[in-house]
Amino acid sequence: MADVVKAIAYSSSANLGPGYDLLAVAHNAFFDTVTAAITCEGEAKVELSTQREMTIDPEKNTAGLSVLHLLKDEELKLCVKLTLSKGIPVGLGLGSSGASAVAAVSAVNELLGVGIPHEKLTYYAMMGEKAAANVPHPDNVAASMFGNFTVVYSVNPIKVFTISPPKDLRILLVIPDIHIEQKTKRAREMVPKSISMEEHVELSRRLSSLLVGLQLGSKEMIREGMHDPVVEVSRLSLFPFYPSMKRRLLEGGAISVAISGAGPTVFGLTDDSTNSEYIRRFVANECSNFNIHCTVVNADFAKGTKIENRK
Amino acid sequence: MADVVKAIAYSSSANLGPGYDLLAVAHNAFFDTVTAAITCEGEAKVELSTQREMTIDPEKNTAGLSVLHLLKDEELKLCVKLTLSKGIPVGLGLGSSGASAVAAVSAVNELLGVGIPHEKLTYYAMMGEKAAANVPHPDNVAASMFGNFTVVYSVNPIKVFTISPPKDLRILLVIPDIHIEQKTKRAREMVPKSISMEEHVELSRRLSSLLVGLQLGSKEMIREGMHDPVVEVSRLSLFPFYPSMKRRLLEGGAISVAISGAGPTVFGLTDDSTNSEYIRRFVANECSNFNIHCTVVNADFAKGTKIENRK
Repeated sequence: MADVVKAIAYSSSANLGPGYDLLAVAHNAFFDTVTAAITCEGEAKVELSTQREMTIDPEKNTAGLSVLHLLKDEELKLCVKLTLSKGIPVGLGLGSSGASAVAAVSAVNELLGVGIPHEKLTYYAMMGEKAAANVPHPDNVAASMFGNFTVVYSVNPIKVFTISPPKDLRILLVIPDIHIEQKTKRAREMVPKSISMEEHVELSRRLSSLLVGLQLGSKEMIREGMHDPVVEVSRLSLFPFYPSMKRRLLEGGAISVAISGAGPTVFGLTDDSTNSEYIRRFVANECSNFNIHCTVVNADFAKGTKIENRK
Repeated sequence: MADVVKAIAYSSSANLGPGYDLLAVAHNAFFDTVTAAITCEGEAKVELSTQREMTIDPEKNTAGLSVLHLLKDEELKLCVKLTLSKGIPVGLGLGSSGASAVAAVSAVNELLGVGIPHEKLTYYAMMGEKAAANVPHPDNVAASMFGNFTVVYSVNPIKVFTISPPKDLRILLVIPDIHIEQKTKRAREMVPKSISMEEHVELSRRLSSLLVGLQLGSKEMIREGMHDPVVEVSRLSLFPFYPSMKRRLLEGGAISVAISGAGPTVFGLTDDSTNSEYIRRFVANECSNFNIHCTVVNADFAKGTKIENRK
């Protein structure tokens, strides 16, 4: 029996246009790793270290906070030592905070052998997200937990269904090297507090088109659906480069384009007919026009969280 | 070659909880019939008669108005005589006005042999709906045109996808004999002009659950999804009997319950495990508590509009 369990969880892109706070997709572009070990019994406590710092406040990190929620709710009086190894860049809309939380609760679940269902683990990971964004949003953590496209169709209790991607689809990420102070919090605050009924109906149409398009593999429905005239538009001042980049990615044959989560990364779906050369050339030009440097990453859809060494 | 073409179109229930203005289902409970004939050439004109009145103003009836739109947009200078035979009760949320429009444009399309696609015919029928509700809503007409469950995922231009119902599902309609003056118009006006982002996200979750549940045949997801805390709730003062009726239908084993379109009809999905005897007994009692008389109709899912005699 191993004394230490290691789990990984992949990066993800949330929202995807009209799926604000419910839709996301996991990709194998990056992953976080968490190892967990028990160091004492009798009290519920988390000690957290990363590759950079020896110990950090577990309440201020999604990995630590989600495990604290797990220990408390499951009434487990144990000290858990977590070691977090970040592979996912932080603050770029790639679900970094969510993946740390998912890897942490997965590792602890395996370590303790308590068999908590994935939905409940997703709940604990979501509660951990408060450390990053104040609000416990479930979209990224569901994708990192379950893999592929995930829709959180109920929050209390958490219920998730997954959609396997159409066979020939791939993922393109354009990652600008800009860091926006308190980005997720600011991006969430920019979302309008209310929307008109017309906007709601239009978003519902697009969400329907996207969901069914992903299930049927209809690229026309995916393209029609992955367009968000409300949430994305409300945040545009954070991402001035986005409208022209989106237009040019579509010109280069991307199927559909959206801001990845709270940005600034741009998410695209591509297939064999996408002109990657055109896109790479354009992205370099366009980013330099905006005085930013961008990395283009091609990725595949990822599976859910994975235990690297079992107990 | 027949000089007269006859088409029928079935009744439908729109909204189904979170699908306001986009989701509907056709049922074989009732249908309207329209016959169409050409009476002159050289001008675009519609003459309309029903079983009750010899001629009525075609602009004030959805069948007449939709054919006027068709003739104008398709640049057809013909006089068309329509005879409308109403089988669907009016003003009860059963898609009566929409079915008349669908049967009319289908009959005229066949009569003239112009091969207008179903999506375009749906558009003309939707424009005809202005005669009934001031606003050209596409949900009922899409269901009567295409059959089964329909989602209008784009309005301009009209794009529709259909979902075949899970095999063992049936429809239950509870039809109260109350007529509310200008009901559809009033019911539309009661819908809030704007909703909070939280309400929007909740409705999006439920819509996702309903759409995927219908596709997968998951009754749990259908039940979770067919619940509307916003639009239905805003209209409750029109339907004081609804909350207790919904609760008792669910107790009787209905899978899910919603107001049918703008009401007052109550729509339920049932299966073999539904206790029809309990429901019938309860509905009679409950309606008499509210001093109304209700008819319970069991129906199957209907196909789309049908030409009864081809040219």
